[in-house]
Amino acid sequence: MAADTLSKTFAALADPTRRAILARLTGGEASVSELAQPFDMSLPAVTKHLKVLQRAGLISQGREAQWRPCRLEARPLRDASQWMESYRKHWEQRFDRLDEYLRSTGGRAGPPRHRRKKK
Amino acid sequence: MAADTLSKTFAALADPTRRAILARLTGGEASVSELAQPFDMSLPAVTKHLKVLQRAGLISQGREAQWRPCRLEARPLRDASQWMESYRKHWEQRFDRLDEYLRSTGGRAGPPRHRRKKK
Repeated sequence: MAADTLSKTFAALADPTRRAILARLTGGEASVSELAQPFDMSLPAVTKHLKVLQRAGLISQGREAQWRPCRLEARPLRDASQWMESYRKHWEQRFDRLDEYLRSTGGRAGPPRHRRKKK
Repeated sequence: MAADTLSKTFAALADPTRRAILARLTGGEASVSELAQPFDMSLPAVTKHLKVLQRAGLISQGREAQWRPCRLEARPLRDASQWMESYRKHWEQRFDRLDEYLRSTGGRAGPPRHRRKKK
């Protein structure tokens, strides 16, 4: 995956309104005005967010003249998630160090539960 | 996790130089000048990137006066990765639809291998 594509994905996700739009689209296709409804925002402002999402390939828009439904395109999220996976051992190491510390202090609580929650 | 924290994480990751700095830090702590070396960039430009990473909590910097080593702090990546996990079924659905299509056309190749590669 080109570095530039990954940058576009992350930049598109760096906004709570855009993440809320994606969350809404997990429930199915929606028109631009349906997507605009929950936000205290002008239609042009929402359209601007949709363009950022579209350029990042995170949504696509139908061609029907009247009702141009937007739909979620999750593939860039898969690629971004794969990039993050390569750091998993680094965030898990922090918990391993906590485990070691707890054991060395003779705590009776045992290792934290989250350690077993590998997906 | 506050939406704002997630936005900061994604904004910090939306740059190939900053991602390269994080990748370098997976190998261990490094000074600012060590981090600047591989980039065709001024020290102030690299420092600016480091500040973005630091504000997002993705790196921390030691207090030693002379050699202030930077280190990776992977926890925000874990939180961002968890956010992405909630979209997993959506990117997997696309492959399920491809499977169905291949089966309906009676193709003998069987379902694509990637379907079993759940982590």
